[in-house]
Amino acid sequence: MSLKDTDRLEAFSDGVMAVIITIMALEVHRPDAPTWHALRADTPDLLVYVLSFAIVGTYWNNHHHLLRATDRMGAAVMWSNLLLLFWLSLLPIFTGWVGSFPDHSVPAGVYGIIGLGSALSYWILVRAIIRANGPESRVARAIGSDVKGRLSLLLYGSGAALAAVSPIISYVLYAAVAVMWFVPDRRLERTAPQPEA
Amino acid sequence: MSLKDTDRLEAFSDGVMAVIITIMALEVHRPDAPTWHALRADTPDLLVYVLSFAIVGTYWNNHHHLLRATDRMGAAVMWSNLLLLFWLSLLPIFTGWVGSFPDHSVPAGVYGIIGLGSALSYWILVRAIIRANGPESRVARAIGSDVKGRLSLLLYGSGAALAAVSPIISYVLYAAVAVMWFVPDRRLERTAPQPEA
Amino acid sequence: MSLKDTDRLEAFSDGVMAVIITIMALEVHRPDAPTWHALRADTPDLLVYVLSFAIVGTYWNNHHHLLRATDRMGAAVMWSNLLLLFWLSLLPIFTGWVGSFPDHSVPAGVYGIIGLGSALSYWILVRAIIRANGPESRVARAIGSDVKGRLSLLLYGSGAALAAVSPIISYVLYAAVAVMWFVPDRRLERTAPQPEA
Amino acid sequence: MSLKDTDRLEAFSDGVMAVIITIMALEVHRPDAPTWHALRADTPDLLVYVLSFAIVGTYWNNHHHLLRATDRMGAAVMWSNLLLLFWLSLLPIFTGWVGSFPDHSVPAGVYGIIGLGSALSYWILVRAIIRANGPESRVARAIGSDVKGRLSLLLYGSGAALAAVSPIISYVLYAAVAVMWFVPDRRLERTAPQPEA
Repeated sequence: MSLKDTDRLEAFSDGVMAVIITIMALEVHRPDAPTWHALRADTPDLLVYVLSFAIVGTYWNNHHHLLRATDRMGAAVMWSNLLLLFWLSLLPIFTGWVGSFPDHSVPAGVYGIIGLGSALSYWILVRAIIRANGPESRVARAIGSDVKGRLSLLLYGSGAALAAVSPIISYVLYAAVAVMWFVPDRRLERTAPQPEA
Repeated sequence: MSLKDTDRLEAFSDGVMAVIITIMALEVHRPDAPTWHALRADTPDLLVYVLSFAIVGTYWNNHHHLLRATDRMGAAVMWSNLLLLFWLSLLPIFTGWVGSFPDHSVPAGVYGIIGLGSALSYWILVRAIIRANGPESRVARAIGSDVKGRLSLLLYGSGAALAAVSPIISYVLYAAVAVMWFVPDRRLERTAPQPEA
Repeated sequence: MSLKDTDRLEAFSDGVMAVIITIMALEVHRPDAPTWHALRADTPDLLVYVLSFAIVGTYWNNHHHLLRATDRMGAAVMWSNLLLLFWLSLLPIFTGWVGSFPDHSVPAGVYGIIGLGSALSYWILVRAIIRANGPESRVARAIGSDVKGRLSLLLYGSGAALAAVSPIISYVLYAAVAVMWFVPDRRLERTAPQPEA
Repeated sequence: MSLKDTDRLEAFSDGVMAVIITIMALEVHRPDAPTWHALRADTPDLLVYVLSFAIVGTYWNNHHHLLRATDRMGAAVMWSNLLLLFWLSLLPIFTGWVGSFPDHSVPAGVYGIIGLGSALSYWILVRAIIRANGPESRVARAIGSDVKGRLSLLLYGSGAALAAVSPIISYVLYAAVAVMWFVPDRRLERTAPQPEA
């Protein structure tokens, strides 16, 4: 009933994340005039794009390490993976929305909700994988207490809530998640098979 | 004459479905103003997007299990697979159309026709695969009487026809197809090679 | 100097063709109103989309069979493959152009020029592959006199030229190419390794 | 700690580059009228598209040869690869910007800055790969003094700076980079494993 075929799941997820990360750039508004001034007006678009690019890039990176350590799959893994891709697929349009209205609370808060949805889906995916592989499996030991996963939920949640106070606070918290994940997941790297070099 | 090279067929289909599922999100209208009110006006867009995402995700999932159980291919399989991708590739624009006019019969009906075209193409693909692999093959036994496939045709067809009465009925029937397929295809899973764990 | 690594070339080409075939659908104009009348106004868009989909699908199919029979590559193969992808990447916007002005000679003619460019690039790619693999190679024998390749050049060229007389003639000739290729390339299929079934 | 799993890195990078190269064509403005005159007005768009296509195609080609010669990876390689993809992902919108304002200094200069950012990221990626594989590795010997890499930085930098004098000079320098790389990287080809053919 459990299947070992992470390859096509990886390939499809890579495809979706590759398209998301690329079409997101299309949401950056093309400057209206051939001037530095027009380009400067695009700064918020570009900054939110950098943040969203970092988010998707981080998910790709972690997803990659996660599936490398995974031996067994099943329906729950497939569907929770699709749920993660669903949330990530919403990023491009809402990246564009935040870029158009960077000083407003509602887009900043909704962006955090999408971050929260993605992080929650990733958390569900990790649980589904651990359930399919057993508590003594390589992947379960590698994940451990999953401090970063829990912290991401907290930071996105706080960011979404505090957008009502000030969007700047939200952006700082979202960027903190990105920076935190920037350090790759050594837990999973450590347990991965060694290179034959 | 029959070829066993499902790998590239899977890779190409995955690529197309990954792009479809992602650019479909671009058809969700970006809210015009930085307010909850503007976001709420996008609710139909988002709901139809969720439905279309579920449809493409389900096809990917089933397609994945189907090709895993397939040993032999051939020209008929390649072309019926392209036919399926053709119908699915129409989903994004018509998802956008339904999202813009959720209360109208014609978009709701046309959406069902596209669902019907996809389901029919998938049905043709399944037949082509069974013909290439023989009635005693693993895939033929796995498909069996294909109740879900037949039911999908019926539900999409009814939904398309009943859109003239009320689009709501159509949406309920289309959602029913999505929910029905949500339970993964255990027939194919069961016959798949067991994991070496 | 010659490399055998058709895998990544196939993967990249598949990726590009998968994106082309999918974003082409975005060039189909979303009907302006929720009526059959508005949908009917999109008929030219849809018909040209079907033609372009068939063209890209056929290239994918032939490309697939071609590379399966290829043992050796090299720089000329890589660059002529990129040239083919370049011409195909122009299809989406010009598909949209023809869809907007189906009764006009210039778009119909330019569409043929793009078809001609693609067919010529494919012809160059085939020559480069044969040169890399030698005249006695499996792929060289499989290609043979390449009647279809030559006929495609003739039909696209005639279609582009005759667009000045009538766009209808052009469309018929372009569709003839699509139908002609619809029958898959049995020459290459025949020489491919047999399935272990 | 170092991982040998270049496969998924290649697959993801291929995916992103395939999407970039394809959606870039969407930035070519669809001619407004069905006339040669309207098509001629698109000439700058098409020319910049050709240049950008050549740039991404070249990166794909070099990236391909680079990773073929790579045995070991690690976090620095993953992140510098993402940095390269980030810069390349900016190409489509700025290709569109240059195409809209081909006679202006600012877009021409910014295009060069993006070229510079891409070339610098590629240079960082190459250093990260050499660090992970050791100075005596196959890839390190293959790269050697990396004259082309240094020259690219110089040409893009000069082009960006000289755009203030004349955009034409910039375009000539950018095209020179493309032509220079057109000759594939024989250093890496030479050290690659020979075909079993």
